[in-house]
Amino acid sequence: MSDIKNDMGMTVEFLPDGVKIDAIEGETIMQAARRAGVMIDAPCGEHGRCGKCRVTVVEGETDEPSVTEMEKLTPADFAAGTRLSCLAKVQGSLIVEVPNTSRHDTRRKATTALPYHINPDSYTKKTLVYLSVPSISGDLRSDLSRLRDSVPFVKEIDLSAMQCLYNVIASGNRTITAVTAGNRLIGVESGDTVAVHYGVAIDVGTTTVAGYMVNLATGREVAAASTPNPQSAFGADVISRIEYAGTQCDKVEELREVVTSSINEMLYTMAETADISICDIYEITMVGNTCMTHLFLGVDPHSLGQSPYVPVFTESMTVPAEELEICIQSRGVVRTLPNISGFVGADAVGVLAASNIKARPGLQVAVDIGTNAEVVASYNGRAVACSAAAGPAFEGARISCGMRAQPGAIDRVKIDDEDLKVSTIADEKPLGLCGSGVIEAVGELRRVGIIESTGAFADMDDLTGISDKLRNRITDDGVILAYAADCGIDNDIILTTRDVREVQLVKAAIYAGISMLIETMGFTPSHITNLHIAGAFGTYINPEHALNIGLIPNIPLEKVHFLGNAAGAGAKMAIMNNKEFDKIIASAADVEYIELAGDTAFSDHFMMAMLLSPGCEDE
Amino acid sequence: MSDIKNDMGMTVEFLPDGVKIDAIEGETIMQAARRAGVMIDAPCGEHGRCGKCRVTVVEGETDEPSVTEMEKLTPADFAAGTRLSCLAKVQGSLIVEVPNTSRHDTRRKATTALPYHINPDSYTKKTLVYLSVPSISGDLRSDLSRLRDSVPFVKEIDLSAMQCLYNVIASGNRTITAVTAGNRLIGVESGDTVAVHYGVAIDVGTTTVAGYMVNLATGREVAAASTPNPQSAFGADVISRIEYAGTQCDKVEELREVVTSSINEMLYTMAETADISICDIYEITMVGNTCMTHLFLGVDPHSLGQSPYVPVFTESMTVPAEELEICIQSRGVVRTLPNISGFVGADAVGVLAASNIKARPGLQVAVDIGTNAEVVASYNGRAVACSAAAGPAFEGARISCGMRAQPGAIDRVKIDDEDLKVSTIADEKPLGLCGSGVIEAVGELRRVGIIESTGAFADMDDLTGISDKLRNRITDDGVILAYAADCGIDNDIILTTRDVREVQLVKAAIYAGISMLIETMGFTPSHITNLHIAGAFGTYINPEHALNIGLIPNIPLEKVHFLGNAAGAGAKMAIMNNKEFDKIIASAADVEYIELAGDTAFSDHFMMAMLLSPGCEDE
Repeated sequence: MSDIKNDMGMTVEFLPDGVKIDAIEGETIMQAARRAGVMIDAPCGEHGRCGKCRVTVVEGETDEPSVTEMEKLTPADFAAGTRLSCLAKVQGSLIVEVPNTSRHDTRRKATTALPYHINPDSYTKKTLVYLSVPSISGDLRSDLSRLRDSVPFVKEIDLSAMQCLYNVIASGNRTITAVTAGNRLIGVESGDTVAVHYGVAIDVGTTTVAGYMVNLATGREVAAASTPNPQSAFGADVISRIEYAGTQCDKVEELREVVTSSINEMLYTMAETADISICDIYEITMVGNTCMTHLFLGVDPHSLGQSPYVPVFTESMTVPAEELEICIQSRGVVRTLPNISGFVGADAVGVLAASNIKARPGLQVAVDIGTNAEVVASYNGRAVACSAAAGPAFEGARISCGMRAQPGAIDRVKIDDEDLKVSTIADEKPLGLCGSGVIEAVGELRRVGIIESTGAFADMDDLTGISDKLRNRITDDGVILAYAADCGIDNDIILTTRDVREVQLVKAAIYAGISMLIETMGFTPSHITNLHIAGAFGTYINPEHALNIGLIPNIPLEKVHFLGNAAGAGAKMAIMNNKEFDKIIASAADVEYIELAGDTAFSDHFMMAMLLSPGCEDE
Repeated sequence: MSDIKNDMGMTVEFLPDGVKIDAIEGETIMQAARRAGVMIDAPCGEHGRCGKCRVTVVEGETDEPSVTEMEKLTPADFAAGTRLSCLAKVQGSLIVEVPNTSRHDTRRKATTALPYHINPDSYTKKTLVYLSVPSISGDLRSDLSRLRDSVPFVKEIDLSAMQCLYNVIASGNRTITAVTAGNRLIGVESGDTVAVHYGVAIDVGTTTVAGYMVNLATGREVAAASTPNPQSAFGADVISRIEYAGTQCDKVEELREVVTSSINEMLYTMAETADISICDIYEITMVGNTCMTHLFLGVDPHSLGQSPYVPVFTESMTVPAEELEICIQSRGVVRTLPNISGFVGADAVGVLAASNIKARPGLQVAVDIGTNAEVVASYNGRAVACSAAAGPAFEGARISCGMRAQPGAIDRVKIDDEDLKVSTIADEKPLGLCGSGVIEAVGELRRVGIIESTGAFADMDDLTGISDKLRNRITDDGVILAYAADCGIDNDIILTTRDVREVQLVKAAIYAGISMLIETMGFTPSHITNLHIAGAFGTYINPEHALNIGLIPNIPLEKVHFLGNAAGAGAKMAIMNNKEFDKIIASAADVEYIELAGDTAFSDHFMMAMLLSPGCEDE
């Protein structure tokens, strides 16, 4: 971002935050908002395509709307001062109101269940050491030699540990705690601090960042937190972010910095909850998809955006926390779980670990549904993975009234004899439709026949057995899920034919991914022993709808398990016990990767799976 | 140092430099000079004891002189505006003239001879790599996997190397140069840069810092430089600096920073000489005594200043250059040679390597004469070392008219039938007496009988066969070496009885160290096969005088070798070839250390060695 300041005292103020910054003439309102720390949603990557970044210019001058903006907004919108913040440019002092529907917000927290009991035995270790006293006539060994005798596995010494060694020994009256990371001495502390030792597992999702703080001495989770991934302001999906970064180091760094600062805020929050100092955190384990892992480490993700989608790296990295500006103990380390390929990332590796499918009998399939869907299947020790570009529809993007899963989002839809009824997160007045609400709406409308298996709306005349109230909701634009009068916004909330098409595209991608993968292994969906559904989204969908619209294969519901945030759970396993970490690295190295992009069989599966029917292509 | 600024516009200006800084009321002129980057000599550690830091206050106000200052300066001095800059305090705006005699200056450069031919094979390596092109249908490995296949010895990856990998591959058209340090990938460069690879060996002496830049591809030295160790402003010897540092981290850091910045200046100078970029320097090897090694790494040397003189560490350290703020390639590494004990440092280890005494037959003794004298002896594979606190007399300190070996210093003294004659460095008018001049003066005066073996001046009446001119030089204060009229200063340059006593103390310490060491090994000085004298000072002394006043044992002169800066040569061997480095580490681990401090036999040797006679105690 530019550092150019105007010299005319112009400012941009954001309401209701009340944050004011110097205006830079010609930058977009969104760029100004970003500088001000006001995070406006931009799922389309600031291309003016999604129309999600509306703001109201309360006072001051902006440029004339472009053709793109004219298409997205109505004359009434313009009259009310509404603009798309990604297109509208600052031309003088401004006061801008940012509605909640255009912002990131905290969302429901996903659970992390571990597949079995894990004893604490972390990568960083604390060892209590008493250093004997040197004497002129006998033992003249250096302080460090004495220390090394007590931690014989240490092969390398961090300078910073040695720099404070003298004072630590003196103030600890020769009793000190040595902190090691693998075979490296990374710190020394006065006295006995063995019990004060924390680590944090972090799952950097495309949309949400989650953290789990673990007491590494006991293995207990002591705090958890989640926050929207602020990179969303640069694009909702990985492709938009890769486009944003281009091959420019400063943009890669910008994306790294925003996610790092949100992680740091989360770390401070968790440390406060657990009543510890951030200096007691010696270790971070990070998971995320391959692009998130690249950006988290400040590595250019450009090659992930173009065929053949080859990543710069896949392996597990160990990096000093200081180098990444992660606010834990300055000598602490950050480790990433390994990636498998350009589109099967460390998050899928985490799911592999937390679902424990390699150790389970039969054909085990795990699907991590996020902005992308990764599928991993295992049979008799063999593991195969693929990735289906699901897109952010399940996170509310590309859906006309879509929004993230935050207060006011419709998350449940029910049709009974009387009418169609909705419930919302936090029971607030409806503001839009989140991912699980989209599935519910399509599922229910499909169940009663309003939506046909092709995704088309049924002929009104053919519809029987539905109430008048429901019938009244069906318009040329689509189905009104909530009337403006009942909403927290001025418009009806509608599910359009185009929205249904989006759901079909996403669910077809996921279904086809699963089908391709098990076909590669010589099976059909009917052979599935267990289907594990991971991802925050998965926690909230109704499995019957998922099955009936053919999002997942048509198998008995008792075979379907919902894991919650399994990627985060995998990272937690890795931070709790280093042998688990090693196991995870080894198991990731074994996974075969199937590239779907160039495969014609995938296209066939995909076309078949577009039908909104249970197990549509098994028949 | 304080950052408090006065708000009255007071300044201190230093002449002839013309550097002006804001004045801080109450700080000493020396503290102000240090802030201004004007390096005033303070061999006594700013205690007002040595009187070497004289400056002239040309204009402005200072405080009243203290009793200490009154003792050191005459009323005439005060009348001329002369003050001791370590005591005189700033009380308002000042203009201060700093004479050359109170400053650090560059000095004669010592040579570094290697004991045998060494093939280049450095710790950091450059490997040319061509990365094959990935394809969607076949090889989908990551960039890093491809790279690792070409450098299979790589076990760890620096994040910074990975962060730029994508762009380096792109701009190098898939031909890149991998830079490794041991089994760690530290950098990648576009195209073939294998031939552009430099390292620098640095010898941080208590008084002088020397650097030798080597082309690591060819093994050739391409530049050399030396500069005074600016830590001298905090004390001439290690003990004064340890006292200055106390146990305060900020003072340790201050001492680290000053030496680092002088090293950085030297690096820029050498890079300019060799016409390379400092980014082409990937490696530094550092030697120095144990205290210098501690301070260079920012490690508290406090324990070296008190019995039992145990160091914080002795082992060889490898540290990222960035962490030490050493201006080479930011991903480069800095390695220190190992120390042996609190007072036998990495410099002695360098001497051990460059003298190659362990491989030579017979009883081999190497002495490194610096501010301290380290002695290493070897016989039949066994090596023993000790340290004698010689003190900085041979560097001009504690000698009444002493000065460092810089232009105007008397470095040669010759007595013939006519008179006593002196020559100076750079043939300038005499300003004082440097170390080799002191030895020459004592040696010559001893030879003609003016100084007796006890160090006392002979009775005037007993002196025969000396010219009147010479006789006239002998006064109650001592012997006039140069008359004020011939000098660049206003006073006669005199060698006093006290100066002779200083020489006796220093040479006795060195001699007793040698004697003790070979006695421990079961020998007497007459068994010495070769005596190797290292250190810049050693290069300039007359071996006959060294022998006649009993600075070194009384052995045939052909057995005495002068090595020049052998510590620096050892560092050069280590940087040229990593197997040499490993050999040096291994040979240092074998050396037995003899602590002289508590030993009564040492006191006996020392007392005997006070006599100014050849091989004084062998008789």
